[in-house]
Amino acid sequence: MKFDAINFKDKFTKFSEPWSPRVIAEMNDYQFKLVKVEGEFVWHQHPATDETFIVIEGTLNIEFREGTVTLNSGEMFVIPKGVEHKPVAINECKIMIVEPKGVVNTGDSDSELTAKDDVWV
Amino acid sequence: MKFDAINFKDKFTKFSEPWSPRVIAEMNDYQFKLVKVEGEFVWHQHPATDETFIVIEGTLNIEFREGTVTLNSGEMFVIPKGVEHKPVAINECKIMIVEPKGVVNTGDSDSELTAKDDVWV
Repeated sequence: MKFDAINFKDKFTKFSEPWSPRVIAEMNDYQFKLVKVEGEFVWHQHPATDETFIVIEGTLNIEFREGTVTLNSGEMFVIPKGVEHKPVAINECKIMIVEPKGVVNTGDSDSELTAKDDVWV
Repeated sequence: MKFDAINFKDKFTKFSEPWSPRVIAEMNDYQFKLVKVEGEFVWHQHPATDETFIVIEGTLNIEFREGTVTLNSGEMFVIPKGVEHKPVAINECKIMIVEPKGVVNTGDSDSELTAKDDVWV
């Protein structure tokens, strides 16, 4: 067992591609993933699971068909399973996602933004 | 569905008791809990699940039988299931715990620090 803290800022220095989640930790069958986001993502939903967004730095808007949530640093939101959403960040925003292992970033949508799963940093 | 961000700082203003977790969100059968910690907790372990600690403000030491992890703001650590640990904070520290719903804070240890489960803030 390694007794090393996982430092978000340090991990964010190790990659730059936007919309490309990097796994930093596992808890049971869940993963913690850091993502740099900027611009508009695609509308999608995850039919089998809730999904948690935590903003580490910057501002993220999560658009829904019936409203928008704005998250700043130190704020979080849980998107219920099956609910369509589209993340949008006007400027670069650093976030952490918590969700079951194996969840694809674009959910049910085929997209050029679909990222490789289970890439660690 | 409510489109409100969950703000950690705001939630922390709503309770003061140390070692007394407050649930702020659920994701599937997992919960996100805020805790104010200060002083020494009890040695314990959770036989059925990993447990995630994220430090929001302050410094937390997590002692293990064979080492110690020190976490500052913006750092996290996942304690594997079945591993004995004792959280210690010299000064008040604000943390978030992520773990399955129903996990008792003192795990397998009977203690006066055992907190009521599933208290929301």
